[in-house]
Amino acid sequence: MIRQLTVIGVGLIGGSFALALRQAGAVERIVGVARDPETLERALQRGIIDHGTTDVREGARGSDVVMISVPLSGMAGVFEALDGAVADGAVITDAGSAKGQVLADAEAAFGRIPPRFVAGHPIAGTESSGVDAAFATLYQQHRVILTPTETTDPDALTTVRGLWQATGAQVVTMEAAHHDEVLAATSHLPHVLAYALVDALSRWDERTEIFEFAAGGFRDFTRIASSDPRMWRDICLANRVELADALRRYLADLTRVTAHLEAGDGDALEAVFRNAQDQRQRFLELLEGRQQS
Amino acid sequence: MIRQLTVIGVGLIGGSFALALRQAGAVERIVGVARDPETLERALQRGIIDHGTTDVREGARGSDVVMISVPLSGMAGVFEALDGAVADGAVITDAGSAKGQVLADAEAAFGRIPPRFVAGHPIAGTESSGVDAAFATLYQQHRVILTPTETTDPDALTTVRGLWQATGAQVVTMEAAHHDEVLAATSHLPHVLAYALVDALSRWDERTEIFEFAAGGFRDFTRIASSDPRMWRDICLANRVELADALRRYLADLTRVTAHLEAGDGDALEAVFRNAQDQRQRFLELLEGRQQS
Repeated sequence: MIRQLTVIGVGLIGGSFALALRQAGAVERIVGVARDPETLERALQRGIIDHGTTDVREGARGSDVVMISVPLSGMAGVFEALDGAVADGAVITDAGSAKGQVLADAEAAFGRIPPRFVAGHPIAGTESSGVDAAFATLYQQHRVILTPTETTDPDALTTVRGLWQATGAQVVTMEAAHHDEVLAATSHLPHVLAYALVDALSRWDERTEIFEFAAGGFRDFTRIASSDPRMWRDICLANRVELADALRRYLADLTRVTAHLEAGDGDALEAVFRNAQDQRQRFLELLEGRQQS
Repeated sequence: MIRQLTVIGVGLIGGSFALALRQAGAVERIVGVARDPETLERALQRGIIDHGTTDVREGARGSDVVMISVPLSGMAGVFEALDGAVADGAVITDAGSAKGQVLADAEAAFGRIPPRFVAGHPIAGTESSGVDAAFATLYQQHRVILTPTETTDPDALTTVRGLWQATGAQVVTMEAAHHDEVLAATSHLPHVLAYALVDALSRWDERTEIFEFAAGGFRDFTRIASSDPRMWRDICLANRVELADALRRYLADLTRVTAHLEAGDGDALEAVFRNAQDQRQRFLELLEGRQQS
């Protein structure tokens, strides 16, 4: 049981973390930190937090665990504010989508990566954001990746792992660089492809009717293009090297597929499509197995 | 009321057309044509058809309307078989996803595009296919695009329009070339992007774990990559010119977005993402308005 948890950033990710832990009875008191007093008011109304403040240092005071769930561009500022403001023995963790950048920000702010800082990333979310989007079951049967370093305190890792498990998540650990490579492929790349497609079509659409004739497949394919543009700008910049690499590889692959089409090479096209169908089936089985485990 | 309808190809599209018309009481008798006797057996069992045959000419005999809902690569063969086999005054229509190619196939088989042939395309479907995937409500509140030519008989157009309306669909007409351009953008391009992504990731995936860390966003984004590879090979080849043009334009746009990322130009990225978010919202409102109309 955690006596006091501070959640810095009470949007979809931080708010859902707080709600899930409260529902699990894993924390006694939750302090919320947000820039906007109205956000704190809503978080209080929804029972997400017990107390709210706009001041990071005040919010972190006396807490056993501090969760930082702010957009990636806000991480450095929060780390700087936390320096010297947390209790000895307090554990700090985060929920940022790019781990190399977060670790670098922490190192810059604290002079080294604090042993009781455990970087993490829940592989969950919706295209909605903000305090009103938060819900207690967001993390159930979802993966959370923690990226401890060689100097991470094992007790701190155990604490953070336990909290995520209490939300219903399945926790795995890996190196930050590997996390960034995997997420570039499965999350950041698809987001950029979807954003780029909708943006492109809207500019091709001289007759303002292309979207008139799109259907359910298009709606699903572009769902992630409804995600918060500011947040995704941050994620893309934070994981810029790995994401640019994934984009260049995809561009090369897509150019090859386009060449098959232009050459009328139906067999080559079908081989790509068939492999994709098979691999997606494999992915669906993985996803299903995870949800049943 | 149509006395006898022949449906050539009783899969998701043709089977759902038959089920919807039967449910609407718009046809008296439905004859199904398929290559595989087992498909006909299933279609009979499911009440989709009243009689089945593997012979196109036999199946079309005496029917008022013949719907061709076979894969695009099979259209030419069906048109050839139908030449001289349909009653005077019978209306022929189809449900192929690329209209220029279908009209060219019809012209080649009949020597000219028959005045009582009305080309069409329902903008509906799922990633499933086959007779067991058919259901009566597939077309409700979906668009159907008919692409009559200058020589199309207005009565034939009225008949086909009426049948689609009886399925619950909203019918619009446009030129075949324009249909192919619009569908290349909103349907064929997204399918190729999704197939290419899953195929690419499966080949990058040296540690066989990339898919382990994908979540709901990835599942939605790649749903269309579970579509029938053979059918999509046909669609891509049939609409090759327009689709290749769309792919080349998208490649250029995506290359520009990648360059923004590599340059660390967050503002340019955010502008793309924000426009996409806005435009998708516009699309969702269109889709909702259509479903309420």
